Amino acid sequence: MTTREQHDRMANAIRFLSMDAVEKANSGHPGLPMGAADIATVLFTRFLNFDPKNPNWADRDRFVLSAGHGSMLLYSVLYLTGYPDIDLDQIKNFRQLGAKTAGHPEYGYAAGIETTTGPLGQGLANSVGMALAERILNARFGDKIVDHYTYVLAGDGCLMEGISQEAISLAGHLKLNKLIVFWDDNNISIDGEISLSDSTDQRKRFEASGWNTLAVDGHDPEAIAAAIETAQKSDRPTLIAAKTTIGFGAPTRAGTSKAHGSPLGAEEIAGARKALGWDYEPFVVPDDVLNAWREAGARGADKRAAWEKRFGDADAITKGEFERRMKGDLPAGFDQMIVDYKKTLSEDKPKVATRKSSEMALEVINAMLPETIGGSADLTGSNNTKTSQTGPIKPGDYSGRYVYYGIREHGMAAAMNGMALHGGVIPYGGTFMCFSDYARPSMRLASLMGIRSIFVMTHDSIGLGEDGPTHQPVEHLAALRAIPNHLVLRPADAVEAAEAWQIALESSTAPSTLALTRQNLPSLRTTHSDENLSAKGAYELEAASGDAKATIFATGSEVEIAVAARAVLETKGIPARVVSVPSFELFRKQDDAYRASVLGAAPVKLAVEAGIRQGWDEIIGSDGLFVGMTGFGASAPIEDLYKHFGITAEAIVAAVEGKLAKA
Amino acid sequence: MTTREQHDRMANAIRFLSMDAVEKANSGHPGLPMGAADIATVLFTRFLNFDPKNPNWADRDRFVLSAGHGSMLLYSVLYLTGYPDIDLDQIKNFRQLGAKTAGHPEYGYAAGIETTTGPLGQGLANSVGMALAERILNARFGDKIVDHYTYVLAGDGCLMEGISQEAISLAGHLKLNKLIVFWDDNNISIDGEISLSDSTDQRKRFEASGWNTLAVDGHDPEAIAAAIETAQKSDRPTLIAAKTTIGFGAPTRAGTSKAHGSPLGAEEIAGARKALGWDYEPFVVPDDVLNAWREAGARGADKRAAWEKRFGDADAITKGEFERRMKGDLPAGFDQMIVDYKKTLSEDKPKVATRKSSEMALEVINAMLPETIGGSADLTGSNNTKTSQTGPIKPGDYSGRYVYYGIREHGMAAAMNGMALHGGVIPYGGTFMCFSDYARPSMRLASLMGIRSIFVMTHDSIGLGEDGPTHQPVEHLAALRAIPNHLVLRPADAVEAAEAWQIALESSTAPSTLALTRQNLPSLRTTHSDENLSAKGAYELEAASGDAKATIFATGSEVEIAVAARAVLETKGIPARVVSVPSFELFRKQDDAYRASVLGAAPVKLAVEAGIRQGWDEIIGSDGLFVGMTGFGASAPIEDLYKHFGITAEAIVAAVEGKLAKA
Repeated sequence: MTTREQHDRMANAIRFLSMDAVEKANSGHPGLPMGAADIATVLFTRFLNFDPKNPNWADRDRFVLSAGHGSMLLYSVLYLTGYPDIDLDQIKNFRQLGAKTAGHPEYGYAAGIETTTGPLGQGLANSVGMALAERILNARFGDKIVDHYTYVLAGDGCLMEGISQEAISLAGHLKLNKLIVFWDDNNISIDGEISLSDSTDQRKRFEASGWNTLAVDGHDPEAIAAAIETAQKSDRPTLIAAKTTIGFGAPTRAGTSKAHGSPLGAEEIAGARKALGWDYEPFVVPDDVLNAWREAGARGADKRAAWEKRFGDADAITKGEFERRMKGDLPAGFDQMIVDYKKTLSEDKPKVATRKSSEMALEVINAMLPETIGGSADLTGSNNTKTSQTGPIKPGDYSGRYVYYGIREHGMAAAMNGMALHGGVIPYGGTFMCFSDYARPSMRLASLMGIRSIFVMTHDSIGLGEDGPTHQPVEHLAALRAIPNHLVLRPADAVEAAEAWQIALESSTAPSTLALTRQNLPSLRTTHSDENLSAKGAYELEAASGDAKATIFATGSEVEIAVAARAVLETKGIPARVVSVPSFELFRKQDDAYRASVLGAAPVKLAVEAGIRQGWDEIIGSDGLFVGMTGFGASAPIEDLYKHFGITAEAIVAAVEGKLAKA
Repeated sequence: MTTREQHDRMANAIRFLSMDAVEKANSGHPGLPMGAADIATVLFTRFLNFDPKNPNWADRDRFVLSAGHGSMLLYSVLYLTGYPDIDLDQIKNFRQLGAKTAGHPEYGYAAGIETTTGPLGQGLANSVGMALAERILNARFGDKIVDHYTYVLAGDGCLMEGISQEAISLAGHLKLNKLIVFWDDNNISIDGEISLSDSTDQRKRFEASGWNTLAVDGHDPEAIAAAIETAQKSDRPTLIAAKTTIGFGAPTRAGTSKAHGSPLGAEEIAGARKALGWDYEPFVVPDDVLNAWREAGARGADKRAAWEKRFGDADAITKGEFERRMKGDLPAGFDQMIVDYKKTLSEDKPKVATRKSSEMALEVINAMLPETIGGSADLTGSNNTKTSQTGPIKPGDYSGRYVYYGIREHGMAAAMNGMALHGGVIPYGGTFMCFSDYARPSMRLASLMGIRSIFVMTHDSIGLGEDGPTHQPVEHLAALRAIPNHLVLRPADAVEAAEAWQIALESSTAPSTLALTRQNLPSLRTTHSDENLSAKGAYELEAASGDAKATIFATGSEVEIAVAARAVLETKGIPARVVSVPSFELFRKQDDAYRASVLGAAPVKLAVEAGIRQGWDEIIGSDGLFVGMTGFGASAPIEDLYKHFGITAEAIVAAVEGKLAKA
């Protein structure tokens, strides 16, 4: 058998496993795996450094299937190369409840799935973060320990999504030359030929963003191999435009949108078997082909062993530090450092915006945690995300710790996800909270994957002031709290800001959003507590002088207002308590007894938050009182706005009194 | 005075009004108005067709300040050219409560503000919709009635945002040659020089998307004029890269990020006065300059009169139709048509997915309303957005009524907003509901502006099935309901789908999202009602046989489950009623008596929705029962998923019985 014949049979194994699995599931996307099988075969059998027996080898090459609907391509290759998680039963169980082989690749379901993809463009943008993390770690640990490629397979959909522009312009700017992206240039999208909706010259577009580009026949293995070799030598990231036929081998559907997203049917598959000379039952991969694939899968074992050797030769401190970072553990003493820092805060009682107290916390955190990588979508001075330790990461020089992401909130969030997925770094990045909307698809994926991306969202209410309703979050706290497995933390002062950072950094299975003010706030936590009170989600900040008639719940900047209202109520002989609620999600996790003690038994429950009510009924009950927003904000100085929208201590007092009078 | 001297003085009027207003407000962005003053002066005094006395003239050129933070540029020009809404008091009241001169341009605050901008990239993407609407109307009404340009001023931020790529690739593909975009190429963003974060060759990038590009000195009026003349003749959209100095004229801050986003201070402004020879008090525009500007503002009156004449010469039917469309009125008989259509549905009782019943409704709507322009972000066959009347809109041929938006949810939504803002068309566009996240910034702006964009979001729950959690909305209904002034409509069957379309089309001050199923649903509204019951937000679909012990609230696909649960409860001797809740927002607007009658007095209130609970407490109370989702979905066939997540009639029955047993 010639090399080419063997290649074809190996690629056909991907094609038929994909066709068969989609057919059995009666659901899925056969077109991409069939079209891109040659690319995957060349990449996985000749270039990609990986070891299925040690799938989490730190210096493995990363492979991202950005066109996640083609999941059977990835599952087929993982099975064929011998990843234990994906056996033939998993392939046969494609898209069924509990299968590791979900409709789209889901991070955490099986080793070898480097990121969750499906929402288009995300994988490509993740890969920028992975390639950046690789360079950052390389700058710290050297070529012997970190030196790998990041490969991506992206489709037309990925390239049409706006996030792709943010990703490629950032990657091009930063000269991430170990990033190699295949564009599965098959001229087909769901609606039909690409010419229906697009006429972009993609190579020119990538070149405009500083990329190296190549074009190959995506069904010619030697051309593909040559392109990868060229790409590996580039001083810039590389796009390989690979001309392919979607559904390659399907007698009537190849090259059409009918091959894209539904089972081909028995007849078409039979035709493909004939056309491609694949005379085997469904799911059967003949021994010669399976053996060849398994050999390819075993290729990486030596390389991994060589890496282990090199790594073993490193000094103990380097090894310990690298392993700690890759595990994602925080350094010993981190907790105590936060406690000590909180102690100074409760003495200093700073009156600063929480975006500033976030920066102050970061200043001590970044001094202790060399793995944090900060950044902002062009609002560095406003988000207060840069500290003295974080020099800029520059094109070709990755020794810094701060990314100037540019005005690219979506690309930033997705790149942060990629960094978190790569491991070894902890990414945080900022923008105005209103623009969390731009980043939302990636923030959702961070939650779904359960990874430690930390989103710093400042200017978190009408407190932003004059910029007006386009920039004032109103529904954003509710909308972010709605995302499952997403920690929304809204600290009320400097101590809570420090606690929020501790929570976010210690949260290894959920991303966090820190909601921070533009405006100054007083210190409210002036009595030191070793315990991280914010970690309970809600706690009594001020007790009532007697049997509480009212409990005022508040978050962030409105805790100050709640405290002021309580003082007035107390002078009026109405005992009242204040509960700070930095996190709904964390409060929900407390036991019933604690929850009941915090919610209390006061006849009046009132919440104050400069956002909409949605979600608050869980805490105050649907008959609770709410002081907040009911619609969009307005452009004016902050004092005017709080008055105009009635978010004041006076309004709280009046509401409590009114309710008590009725009772 | 030479022409150039006059130009400079006119441009300086913009500069000083902007500096002075920002200084007085002690907040705002002087840098862009100062840098782009020459561009605006050339455009508004020599090219833009507009008439401040008739600012809504249908065939005016549109001007979009995509870099909305430079709002004082627009306000200055509106004042100088004589728009009545913006007088000198408004300029002096910049960024104050109640001013028309908000921090960022807010649509609806003052004539001459064509769209709300500030969130970057949105204006550019709106302009694509405006330019497309212009071509569509031109194709229907001819050059004599519709033939105008759309001009945009965009900054680096606009071009870095991913949405800009979606916008420019769509515009380039569709050859929208009457779209002319200025790029205020000042090499500065908030964080510093652009080279910190970007090195894109923007001209090459736009050319890759099929644009004509030009480069000029943005401070050379004749060069700017020549570029506009060239652009007007292009057969493609044009980017004019205009090299400018941010904060032009500021002695120490010009050309730096310090000119961008904060007041310059008295000293710097005094220096600018000296440097630019502007020896006038703050807010004073000398007569010669104001007169010259007012003359420029009067330029358009003749053109408008000529247009009125041409329009007057058209036949009565054309005139009536054009005026109706531009007003946004629906044709006479629309309501009756919907009633008649509902009658056939209550007889035919189709068992189809609501995405299909949406298509069926659209089929009759599109036959009656020639102004609807459909589209999808590459999910036409899945979103069911195309009907027999809507032929494709093609590059250079705008006679169709359907836009293949490509995989560009964000660009689609923003372009739809631009179409709605232009007027004369009613845009609707589809994607999977999960990807509403991608479009969210534009959907929010539609709500803030109060315009009739209609978002068709199909596959609205785990009912999507095998594609899995990346594609299954869980929090999206809550997140969309959180946006103020956004109608979320989730119909339960074909009749409710028709009603939802009627509501969306008749909603001229709020955008709508239709949440539609992938899976088939039975007809539940089998008794015809002339009244649009969905317009009340919630209504009793099935009464209890006796004194209701339970009320089951449900939306969309879960109403079927609620009805099944009710039947079981009734057989068990537990009288129960079912309330369908197609829209929270509309139900909130009903009077107390109606709300009370719908909420009812049954001891058990239960809601069932295949999404999270957030928001439901408003209807069922915080002690109400909820059957729905608590986290992300999974990849499996739909039947498995509903069982797996316990969203079944059995679960409802058990919950109701459990609660009644405890009571």
